[in-house]
This record gives sequence, structure tokens and C-alpha cells, in this order.
Amino acid sequence: MLGVKALFFDVFGTLVDFRSSVAREAKATLQQDGYDLDWEAFADAWRLEYQPAMEEIRAGRQPYCKLDVLHRQNLERILPRFGVRGLAADKLAGLNFAWHRLDAWPGSTQALVRLKTQYRIAPVSNGNISLMIDLARHNGFPWDVILGADIAQDFKPKAGVYFAACDALDLAPGQCMMVAAHSSDLAAAAANGLRTAHIARPDEHGPGKGEAAPSVPVDMATRNLSELADMLGC
Amino acid sequence: MLGVKALFFDVFGTLVDFRSSVAREAKATLQQDGYDLDWEAFADAWRLEYQPAMEEIRAGRQPYCKLDVLHRQNLERILPRFGVRGLAADKLAGLNFAWHRLDAWPGSTQALVRLKTQYRIAPVSNGNISLMIDLARHNGFPWDVILGADIAQDFKPKAGVYFAACDALDLAPGQCMMVAAHSSDLAAAAANGLRTAHIARPDEHGPGKGEAAPSVPVDMATRNLSELADMLGC
Repeated sequence: MLGVKALFFDVFGTLVDFRSSVAREAKATLQQDGYDLDWEAFADAWRLEYQPAMEEIRAGRQPYCKLDVLHRQNLERILPRFGVRGLAADKLAGLNFAWHRLDAWPGSTQALVRLKTQYRIAPVSNGNISLMIDLARHNGFPWDVILGADIAQDFKPKAGVYFAACDALDLAPGQCMMVAAHSSDLAAAAANGLRTAHIARPDEHGPGKGEAAPSVPVDMATRNLSELADMLGC
Repeated sequence: MLGVKALFFDVFGTLVDFRSSVAREAKATLQQDGYDLDWEAFADAWRLEYQPAMEEIRAGRQPYCKLDVLHRQNLERILPRFGVRGLAADKLAGLNFAWHRLDAWPGSTQALVRLKTQYRIAPVSNGNISLMIDLARHNGFPWDVILGADIAQDFKPKAGVYFAACDALDLAPGQCMMVAAHSSDLAAAAANGLRTAHIARPDEHGPGKGEAAPSVPVDMATRNLSELADMLGC
């Protein structure tokens, strides 16, 4: 891709399968207390609180805080809906850390290793730095640096998050490519001058419930990260 | 070291031998134009401008800018003193990038790999993110994340730089250890609640011109990074 020097990666949904992982972690934490929930539905409900919580900050109604804090608030909001009450403090904290133990979609790490041979690679996620470090250690993501929300003190798709990432690498937006499984992220990146690559994750929110193809114009549409590495000549 | 979860590393002088590397890069750039300087003296002169330039920003007289920018201003200040005038723009830019190609002191990378097995590791340097990425790629530094001046928008030894690094990892200052070859850096880190480890670099500014031992109280005083890894049980 002519002139592209850096690849920015969305993480939740694009690199890691949060739904299965959160369901697994919730089950591991809550089943021993006698709960038997629809674990995937619990994961879906938790994730559904994600965008509204960030929107309060994007809109300026709340000051920036780390995604870990929002995840915790959202967790406490949804637990009663599933009949879970009075959870011990250490269990609550441990369950909130489910997001630090998400498994990568198969092949993601190997593709990142290939892509790193020719491009600077960084997560540009709404997750906080410590969360990104834990996911990198858990999955072996070989990042050059961790960029994203904490650096910009705001959340995607606000323009400042993309610009802060470009600026950290001394690159113009046109020298950076956003890689994501979400058309909304890529539309915002493109509107701010970045190149874009879509990764199909047709099962992100359950079988057949994910973007099999982009719904907006992108520079590249790929089936997976390995195909992206092929197309970028890595 | 009881309770320490993360190690923060000073880079210039502590991990990399800037004096020899800058001298080598200056020679490679300028000798082909017929210049024959005292290359080590040139490196010393360039480095001597480092603290005063940052002090303008620490004191609030200038807004924050990346170290690359300060290095460039300092370079243009010292070149005439060495009789170098009218250098082509690409040569100036290339020479300024000498700081992106500094060689590590022997054994640094291997020790970092060992330390990473038990601690989060990050540079907390006054160098900008893109510079830190290039040094990591050049030397194989296996960072978890890049922290330091760009994250804090200020320069060490200002307290905010240490606190921003701790905060990015969700750690209290007492859970973080600053590792440096400079007593001034360690004194500031300790004053802000961090643990400290001194690395002897007796030849940093030329033979016998460096800190062979700390001049302030530290938690650990070591001869090199390998010894630090030994002492930390890695």
C-alpha cells in the first residue's frame, strides 16, 4: 500500500474474540457461586453497555476515564438483570478483568508478526494501556507501542484518537492504515485521512452476527489478518 | 523486590551508549563532505545542550515539544561552532536521526528479556515515542509499552512524568522501580515514591566520565543490567 508506514489495529472484535472469552470468564467466576446464566447473553449484555458509556465522555458530559472503569460500572449495572447480587469485592474485580484475558482470533498473532516486518504496528483501541499490555502478553501481540484512547484521553471514533496515534509516530494520516472489523471505525478513520482495511469477523457477536464485509468504502477488504499480510506483501 | 510490578528504564546513557553512537553517525554523515571534527567532542557538545533545552519546557517558558525537535534546534546551534555551515536539508534531518540509531550497551537487551519474564518493562525516557520505537527496533528492546515524556507532555525529572507512567499501568509509585545510570533521575523518582535501581555506567561521557556509583540513596546499586536481573531473581 503506497506510502503506508504504520498499521493501527482495533482490538475488541478485530483481534480478539471478546464474546466467547467473556462468556468463559464469567462462567469460571460465577458458576462456583451456584449461578447458571446464559453466558453468551451475559457477554452480549455487558458489551451492549460499551458504546453508551463511552458516549458520555465523547460528548463531553463526563471527563475521560479508562475503559476498565467503564467496564466496572457497566458490570455492576447488568449483574442484577441476571439475578447476580452481593458479589464479593474480589470476585467483582476479578470478573472485570475478564477483558484483560481475551483470546485472539486464530492466526492473529502470526499475522501481526509478519506485518511487523514491514510496518510499525500499534493497537489504536478504546481499551486502556494496562488492558492492552495484558492482552498483548496473553496472546503474544508484538506491538511496537500502545496507542489509542489513553494517549488521546478520548474514545474512537473521535478524530483526536486517530490524530494522536499518527502524531506519536510522526506520520501524516495518509501514511497510517486503520485495520478493523467495524465499518464505523473505518469510516471515521477515512474521514480523517487514514487508509483503511476491513477484516471480516462474521461471528463477532455470535454465529452470523458480525460484519462479513464492510458497509463503507475501504482501501482493502480482507477475510482475515493473514490475507491482509498477503495483500500488503509481508 | 517486594511489591514491585514494573520497571521503568532511563534510556540515553543507561541502556544506550549515545556518545559513541552519535560520534559514529556524525562522522558517517559529515566526513563525506570533507569535515574532520573531533567526533566525540561534537557528541559531547550536542548532548550538553540537552538539559538547558528541556529546562525551558519544564519551567513553563515554552510549550512541550518532542525531543526530536529540541535535538534539531540544538544541532543547528552547535554546528557553526565546529565550522559546519550550509548543510543540505536532508543531511541535517539524517544527522538529527542519529539519536534513533543509538547502540545499546552490551548485554542490555538480553537482560531486558530476562526482566520481562517477571516485570512489566517500559522506557520512561525524555525521548519521544517514535524515537523510542526506532531504538527498540534497532536494539531489540522487548518493551511492553512506551511511556515517558510524550505521555506526560513534560520532561523528567518533573514529577508528572513518573506519575503518568505509574498511572498508565494502574500501579502505585511504590510498585514501580526507576532504573537509571543517573542519580538525579533516581533522586526525583524516589522523592515521588518510586523504588530505584542504579546502573553503573562509568564511561557514559568518555572513559571514567560517568557514574560508577550512585550519589544518592537507592534501593539497589548494580554494575549492569544483568546484575539487576540477578538481584531481582529473574
